[in-house]
Amino acid sequence: MSAGSSIGVDVGGTKVLAVRISVEGTVQDVATRPMPGRSAPEAEVEHAVVEAARAVSDGDGAAPIGVSAAGLVDRAGEHYLFGAHLPWRDAPLRSRLAEQTGHPVVLENDANCAAYAELLLGAARDVDSALLITIGTGIGGALVLDRRIVRGANGLAGEFGHMQVVPDGLACECGLRGCWEQYCSGRALERVTRVALGKHRDGPEVSRMALDGDDVARQAFATIGTWLGVGVAGLVSAFDPERVVVGGGVSAVGDLLLAPARSALLGSLQGTGHRPVPDLVPAALGPQAGAIGAALLARDGRP
Amino acid sequence: MSAGSSIGVDVGGTKVLAVRISVEGTVQDVATRPMPGRSAPEAEVEHAVVEAARAVSDGDGAAPIGVSAAGLVDRAGEHYLFGAHLPWRDAPLRSRLAEQTGHPVVLENDANCAAYAELLLGAARDVDSALLITIGTGIGGALVLDRRIVRGANGLAGEFGHMQVVPDGLACECGLRGCWEQYCSGRALERVTRVALGKHRDGPEVSRMALDGDDVARQAFATIGTWLGVGVAGLVSAFDPERVVVGGGVSAVGDLLLAPARSALLGSLQGTGHRPVPDLVPAALGPQAGAIGAALLARDGRP
Repeated sequence: MSAGSSIGVDVGGTKVLAVRISVEGTVQDVATRPMPGRSAPEAEVEHAVVEAARAVSDGDGAAPIGVSAAGLVDRAGEHYLFGAHLPWRDAPLRSRLAEQTGHPVVLENDANCAAYAELLLGAARDVDSALLITIGTGIGGALVLDRRIVRGANGLAGEFGHMQVVPDGLACECGLRGCWEQYCSGRALERVTRVALGKHRDGPEVSRMALDGDDVARQAFATIGTWLGVGVAGLVSAFDPERVVVGGGVSAVGDLLLAPARSALLGSLQGTGHRPVPDLVPAALGPQAGAIGAALLARDGRP
Repeated sequence: MSAGSSIGVDVGGTKVLAVRISVEGTVQDVATRPMPGRSAPEAEVEHAVVEAARAVSDGDGAAPIGVSAAGLVDRAGEHYLFGAHLPWRDAPLRSRLAEQTGHPVVLENDANCAAYAELLLGAARDVDSALLITIGTGIGGALVLDRRIVRGANGLAGEFGHMQVVPDGLACECGLRGCWEQYCSGRALERVTRVALGKHRDGPEVSRMALDGDDVARQAFATIGTWLGVGVAGLVSAFDPERVVVGGGVSAVGDLLLAPARSALLGSLQGTGHRPVPDLVPAALGPQAGAIGAALLARDGRP
């Protein structure tokens, strides 16, 4: 049992990832569970969260648990409202998980969790304002101003993935059409690759192929990287952040994604040549950023 | 001569509008001058600004002047960097105008000026966070959080009009394609009307026709109103503001623009039914909002 440690559990579209961190933020243990799916009963997904947390808890029944969830979480961190990739709808998720685990629980949107981790320990440590984009199954986003996460009037700020980028575009799991995450996400990467190859490859396979030099896979990353830059340009026009930090599983290929994104950012931003353009950099904390940030938020009482 | 009064000058795409306000914000005098045009020499446009300010100054050589300009103004309020509708490029506009007028001068982006006026005296008086959209020749934007204008790392936040909404869309004066203001602005209104009628009507004429019940003009407002709602939905996903305030000359038709916008906002926002949707309301201060806000910013030392 580790005094002062805290637990973070990240509930994503494909898996549930739990970490235990020391009070300084060092990862001490990791566990994963399969995500039962977006159409699974709510209780089944809650069970996977509880199991993952228990697997890293080291017998410390008082360790606070932070839960990082893709989708809309209310401002108070009590309710999970809606999300394209998770089953809950208007569910009092924080209290349910506190009851089921017996631990103190805080609940936060996954991209806000990742942003908090990058802000305290990662690629946004040295700036006052940043835009954070997490590219996994979908797109998560967060905005940092004056070193604080902007939550919005209802806690729903940063849902960049569902901004429309193509009128009457591709159908999205959220029920709308043309959402940014249909063009720039793990699912978009798989779709672009499937169209080019005539067969399915999952996201991690496409990443390996691209890193091994495969042209089709590299072109697929260039396509979604260009969409990344176009969307980021719009957000830079809106927020004018000091830095743009890109994380999530799909960003693990580094410049194969980020170089075309930088190029599209420059090509899609008003007044370049007359204005500073923010750096577009990789996240520092890798695929555990959401879980680590959730644990840090639990440690700090969800500031 | 009026003790404690301040002057605001709004430099727009088609005219230069000056007001003098009392220390409480009451408008005491108004003057306009033609805007020489986006390709006119910088000095000629500066002359129009100085003349408009002089016309309302009432002999008070100490009255601070706030200058509201469409386009990119640096964070310090010293330089006008770039704009689609005005001629200056990287110009030290604040000091030039201070020298030419002999008055203390502050310089601010026009939408930030209008937002400051709405925040202190208008439609955002009673909220903590708001998104402000000004629809004139183009689109101006501003973001208010915790009752302060978000200026961004370089002072360039709120340039919503140049977010791409249509890939490879209509060419914009800024040099890009598919910018939101090509689909939702006075120029867009004129274009949509011209396509439908086969002849040119300027924005104010189309507004009068729509208010008189003309179907073509009403349909043109419905078209740009729908684009307004789609763009606002993206910004609401990103910021989650408490209220959306729409001003500028094009908004003078009220619900002929705002009703289709509300409907498109509801239809383009993720998770409606599971989340609060902000009110979309008309600005309260009318076409003088930019000039009044500039005068208020001059009075308050540009907070």
